[in-house]
Amino acid sequence: MENNIFHLQYAMDTFYFLVCGALVMWMAAGFAMLESGLVRAKNTTEILTKNVALYSISCIMYLVCGYAIMYGGGIFLSGIEEVDVAATLSDFAGREDGFEGGSIYSGASDFFFQVVFVATAMSIVSGAVAERMKLWAFLLFAIVMTGFIYPMEGSWTWGGASVFGMYTLGDLGFSDFAGSGIVHMAGAAAALAGVILLGARKGKYGANGEIHAITGANLPLATLGTFILWMGWFGFNGGSVLKLGDIANANSVAMVFLNTNAAAAGGLVAALIVARILFGKADLTMALNGALAGLVAITAEPSTPTALAATVIGAVGGVIVVFSIIALDKVKIDDPVGAISVHGVVGLFGLLVVPLTNDGSSFSGQIIGALTIFVWVFVTSLIVWGIIKVIIGLRVSEEEEYEGVDLAECGMEAYPEFTSSK
Amino acid sequence: MENNIFHLQYAMDTFYFLVCGALVMWMAAGFAMLESGLVRAKNTTEILTKNVALYSISCIMYLVCGYAIMYGGGIFLSGIEEVDVAATLSDFAGREDGFEGGSIYSGASDFFFQVVFVATAMSIVSGAVAERMKLWAFLLFAIVMTGFIYPMEGSWTWGGASVFGMYTLGDLGFSDFAGSGIVHMAGAAAALAGVILLGARKGKYGANGEIHAITGANLPLATLGTFILWMGWFGFNGGSVLKLGDIANANSVAMVFLNTNAAAAGGLVAALIVARILFGKADLTMALNGALAGLVAITAEPSTPTALAATVIGAVGGVIVVFSIIALDKVKIDDPVGAISVHGVVGLFGLLVVPLTNDGSSFSGQIIGALTIFVWVFVTSLIVWGIIKVIIGLRVSEEEEYEGVDLAECGMEAYPEFTSSK
Amino acid sequence: MENNIFHLQYAMDTFYFLVCGALVMWMAAGFAMLESGLVRAKNTTEILTKNVALYSISCIMYLVCGYAIMYGGGIFLSGIEEVDVAATLSDFAGREDGFEGGSIYSGASDFFFQVVFVATAMSIVSGAVAERMKLWAFLLFAIVMTGFIYPMEGSWTWGGASVFGMYTLGDLGFSDFAGSGIVHMAGAAAALAGVILLGARKGKYGANGEIHAITGANLPLATLGTFILWMGWFGFNGGSVLKLGDIANANSVAMVFLNTNAAAAGGLVAALIVARILFGKADLTMALNGALAGLVAITAEPSTPTALAATVIGAVGGVIVVFSIIALDKVKIDDPVGAISVHGVVGLFGLLVVPLTNDGSSFSGQIIGALTIFVWVFVTSLIVWGIIKVIIGLRVSEEEEYEGVDLAECGMEAYPEFTSSK
Repeated sequence: MENNIFHLQYAMDTFYFLVCGALVMWMAAGFAMLESGLVRAKNTTEILTKNVALYSISCIMYLVCGYAIMYGGGIFLSGIEEVDVAATLSDFAGREDGFEGGSIYSGASDFFFQVVFVATAMSIVSGAVAERMKLWAFLLFAIVMTGFIYPMEGSWTWGGASVFGMYTLGDLGFSDFAGSGIVHMAGAAAALAGVILLGARKGKYGANGEIHAITGANLPLATLGTFILWMGWFGFNGGSVLKLGDIANANSVAMVFLNTNAAAAGGLVAALIVARILFGKADLTMALNGALAGLVAITAEPSTPTALAATVIGAVGGVIVVFSIIALDKVKIDDPVGAISVHGVVGLFGLLVVPLTNDGSSFSGQIIGALTIFVWVFVTSLIVWGIIKVIIGLRVSEEEEYEGVDLAECGMEAYPEFTSSK
Repeated sequence: MENNIFHLQYAMDTFYFLVCGALVMWMAAGFAMLESGLVRAKNTTEILTKNVALYSISCIMYLVCGYAIMYGGGIFLSGIEEVDVAATLSDFAGREDGFEGGSIYSGASDFFFQVVFVATAMSIVSGAVAERMKLWAFLLFAIVMTGFIYPMEGSWTWGGASVFGMYTLGDLGFSDFAGSGIVHMAGAAAALAGVILLGARKGKYGANGEIHAITGANLPLATLGTFILWMGWFGFNGGSVLKLGDIANANSVAMVFLNTNAAAAGGLVAALIVARILFGKADLTMALNGALAGLVAITAEPSTPTALAATVIGAVGGVIVVFSIIALDKVKIDDPVGAISVHGVVGLFGLLVVPLTNDGSSFSGQIIGALTIFVWVFVTSLIVWGIIKVIIGLRVSEEEEYEGVDLAECGMEAYPEFTSSK
Repeated sequence: MENNIFHLQYAMDTFYFLVCGALVMWMAAGFAMLESGLVRAKNTTEILTKNVALYSISCIMYLVCGYAIMYGGGIFLSGIEEVDVAATLSDFAGREDGFEGGSIYSGASDFFFQVVFVATAMSIVSGAVAERMKLWAFLLFAIVMTGFIYPMEGSWTWGGASVFGMYTLGDLGFSDFAGSGIVHMAGAAAALAGVILLGARKGKYGANGEIHAITGANLPLATLGTFILWMGWFGFNGGSVLKLGDIANANSVAMVFLNTNAAAAGGLVAALIVARILFGKADLTMALNGALAGLVAITAEPSTPTALAATVIGAVGGVIVVFSIIALDKVKIDDPVGAISVHGVVGLFGLLVVPLTNDGSSFSGQIIGALTIFVWVFVTSLIVWGIIKVIIGLRVSEEEEYEGVDLAECGMEAYPEFTSSK
């Protein structure tokens, strides 16, 4: 009887992880649609190729070494036949109370849930470097990022390891529930390093400091991508409770779903209004970035705020992202999809707002954690991008950029019948 | 031990609500894709903006006051830390049989599931008024609709309150399982009021009564939107069982999934065949509307019909929608996506067919309920639209309509490279 | 108490089936997007119509007779009110151990999960015969395929019936976990028969043996379709464990999710690299087909390989599919989306690789099973396609093919504003 309950609890927590993981995997499609909607038609095939390839590379690299680095679990090769049911049951029974003593679930489900996070971090990069980076240079970076750079900072945070044996972020009061910093700001840091070495797209900034808007080719796709990300984020944040199967955790998961949704709604409305005030129009792309900013902002702590507080946190994120996008353009950091603002600047904001609702974190801890993540990812990324630049080059030729990277890199247009010229 | 089972039951019912809620949230993407596929290219950015904004406004307004009006629960601000596990366990234990005495699950999960329904009702409106209504006039209406009009009729139906202290719909034998009337016909009633005050699109109806077909710009998007709605409807209807965790309820949820799918299939095939007979062609947009009509038709009672009966109910819905779309065009009610026919006319049909399989409902109760919902929503909507019309106007200028509302309202085209002229 | 656990187990296994079934239903959207992205603009409305209609026909035919043929369960008309809770509980209690004695879950959930598989098999056909087959000829075939041809071979495999009373595939050591052969190769066999009778598209093969590439009109859609299929496949393979609710099965479901993902990633990367070597470009459509090939390859046995082995199996599938697509073009079998290669050739590979990790299967059993499925589906399909060809013809007129089947069959263009000429 007791055993039967353990069976059910184990199955429920495992299934919860798998459903959440499938939703996070779905975010890969969201990034692909968002980015392909926001670039010009001539660079669409290439950005799609980058997105599907980076997801696949993430899965392979995290399997081969990333998971082992991050959680010390060794290379994950065990088949299902090796699971020992009796030992698992005895693990449950050995606890004071099987329902409050922590999580026991399938290791495969844990890996599945973790691996899709790596891909999310990497997806952030592809948008920022779009329309001028060489495809294979990007994929080389993806190998290092997903196999080493991300797993290292993941080991210091969620993995609980000390930073180069110097300090332990958890002890310092650092808390990042689902990864505003660990995933989103990390992705943005890698992107920033790439963008700096890469330079802006031709024609983006004029000789006299003018900023030329380059509009996306397919806004329904960008909107679809945002909705996909919004939906997938329920898995991203909801799954990060790590356990479903008792009353307290179930409440927490539910609150996380509710707050994630509320923050996105707040971010969208705030960005829409701010953009209307600034530009006089209902700017759809700003609204979409506002929703994503709301999601990033709440990701560092979606379980403790009230729903109204979550809406406000999201709204502040939505305001920040509009000004951040404008500011980055002022300093000529060319980010075609606004990824550095959405995931980096707002990711930092998300970290800093945690102590307001979560007593277990401190401002100093959040700042040290943010610095640790940023410095590590930015510096190592700069080195890796730099090495790639020296060896094979980061940027396509001027002619290829003018013609569109689709033909140069992929040999096919995304919409061969819709655009009269390339 | 007993407690452990309650923990699991609570967690399971909560998770079921969250998964279903996420699927209903996904319907917002479905409406956005459907509508943006069926309008002309020059009005696409604006319809996308309306869709993302209405969803966000729904979430905020329902949080601020809608939920309190509908279920009397007060403004929903409680954080997760306030949940009392011991009290919840004692709630379970106090029942005769914890498994048949009703539902206990996270309040946050209930709110999450309910809030996405509000957005669905509002999504129905945006399609019907597309291509000529001012963006901000629409968003103002969305605030009132989601914060007051819908919650009021929701309180009389699912909330169980009496209609202005006069009569109680439940006592009269009104039954609307998942909202053919409460959500879909309500949305259509608000849309109808708006369309009447707004008038038809320029060029839709000729001086001599000719009807000019205005074809959608992107049928793959419309098809994708329909598939998304179809999938999301599993959550919409399946979650409306409100409980999963015992054999009887699990069977009910399964039957609802099966019947929802069957009704959509029946509606699609019926509409395809009817359109083939009437027009001589396999009309894709009619087929899509047929599927949606099948879904709306079964929504009032998806748990009691057999799967074959559900297919037939859906098929009748699919036939009705074709003739309704033709009839509304005859009386010059211009509904670019057929929303009033799909959700209003077929929503009414769905209500009326409930007593055939559900003994707990009566035809008189269904008619009174339908009238109550329709009159309330239509009249209040007419007033609100009217006030907005007086204050800021409902309709864009003739020139803006000709140029496309995208440039006027949003300042950007949806497909700047695909269309040579606006 | 005991009963309460059975209630929960039943509910959990039912919900697991429903969630997986909804994901497989979602694959119908994936096929629709993939195929509409890979055909030319002028044939897009028609392929969308085929996809929505075939899904609906599958649901109706499997309800009317398919399920009864495949599992002998009679026509599925029972309503939810007929479920006997007491008898179900007694079924549980009668087992040695309710948690290891097999699956008890809602019959409706089982039907729902099975019916979406039929649609998958049929979806494979629509892509291969795209751009030149008559719509109604295709739909007629869909009726026979989903109501008879597929259910017959399904009865011999998953249904456990003997093949015409001659031999039983299970006894011979045939094992096909989730349907590399039963679903995917079967769909490809039906497609191959159709393509042979139909002939190639005009202009695909030159008089001197040249092969002219015909590029798809909308690659973001094709990519989205692939992501949808990838996500839906978690339900396709994950649900095929058929039970979730104990430790061993939960582990198996988790391993299946992980391996399904790994195989797709392996297939994508392998195809991308092979195409780069062969063509000198990062061929997006080959990469997408590689991912799908990886998914098909692992489908015959996703539970026993390690994650690394699954990656390798997927990668081999990705290599095979590139060469298979090239080879089929050499012999002038014109398959616009590569469906025969992805689902047929790689489906066979998936079957053959099962004995490497699953001791319960044998190479001889796999070969006999593959032959049984292929011969049955190919021969019956050839007969049915042949009869349809004689009665109403399979192919549109040369002029209709030139103008595009959208106008001829559906009377509307998919992108009326994007393409200057048809």
